[in-house]
Amino acid sequence: MAKHTTKIDLPVSQIRRYLEPGPIVLVSSAHNGTHNIMTMGWHTVMEFTPSLIGCVIAGGIHSFGLIRRSGECVINLPTTALTDTVVGIGNTTGAEIDKFERFGLTVQAAERVEAPLIAECYANFECRLAEDTLIDKYNFFIFEVVKAHVAKSPRHPETLHYTGDGVFMGLGKMISRRSRFRPGML
Amino acid sequence: MAKHTTKIDLPVSQIRRYLEPGPIVLVSSAHNGTHNIMTMGWHTVMEFTPSLIGCVIAGGIHSFGLIRRSGECVINLPTTALTDTVVGIGNTTGAEIDKFERFGLTVQAAERVEAPLIAECYANFECRLAEDTLIDKYNFFIFEVVKAHVAKSPRHPETLHYTGDGVFMGLGKMISRRSRFRPGML
Repeated sequence: MAKHTTKIDLPVSQIRRYLEPGPIVLVSSAHNGTHNIMTMGWHTVMEFTPSLIGCVIAGGIHSFGLIRRSGECVINLPTTALTDTVVGIGNTTGAEIDKFERFGLTVQAAERVEAPLIAECYANFECRLAEDTLIDKYNFFIFEVVKAHVAKSPRHPETLHYTGDGVFMGLGKMISRRSRFRPGML
Repeated sequence: MAKHTTKIDLPVSQIRRYLEPGPIVLVSSAHNGTHNIMTMGWHTVMEFTPSLIGCVIAGGIHSFGLIRRSGECVINLPTTALTDTVVGIGNTTGAEIDKFERFGLTVQAAERVEAPLIAECYANFECRLAEDTLIDKYNFFIFEVVKAHVAKSPRHPETLHYTGDGVFMGLGKMISRRSRFRPGML
């Protein structure tokens, strides 16, 4: 499995390019010497500046505790090359295995958080908890993205989009309508 | 432009099939005899039952007032066949024009809300405001989907996914891994 070793910094205000299309992401976390990875499909961009992401993390799972206690995570963006890894991560629990080890993924140190980056992913967004008001009622976290790493190419990665029932869709065809947007609407 | 006239009811707990992949949607609203349509890319599924959707609606736009005051909206799902309509809706304001009229869209009565369905869209999800705690601070609304209408075919519509900068991606290739999921994880 290839690592995306050549990554560049992306201004955090621009991560909508990768997250607004709605891909499945891998969320990595760490606390007190242990780390874990979960899949996440329920997330949305909420603001450009500060760069905010809202997401649902199920209360019963192993990652919930690590993220709740550390107040940090990394949102990693896999492409279709990692489909089977994504499925494996979503169908196992970090209470029983080390998912980095089991799935042959490379721990890479983040710059601004303790949670690790997954080197094999196309992009990595380092996050700190920004708002906890709706965690108890809805398991809804709002994170601020404090650092963004993105592979230099391709410009439009083929991301995975989950429909439930074991079926993903790949994001494929580019459709540009740039010339038809008013400048302020881009 | 073809209407999707043959629609069936979908259990509201199953709308993740269409919204979890992260498409651009058209949100229709009505209040005091006026209606409007906006584009929306910042939304996420939050719960199966009740069927909850969280989304950001910019405070300055015309639809914000209609939705805030009525506490209702319809989330309509366009496909790539409606690309230019989506761009037109996103680049105009309902303060100046009637978007149904301008873009040749058909108003269809909803069953559970006053806001209209857009007949030309693949699916229509009737919504009532369920939680307003984060509206003032983040323009973040949580809606309960109270009724869902979906076209009978195709099973996997080619939806539009926005990356910013005037560029959409179409959701194309189906990738099934159903056999590799544990039953409880589907």
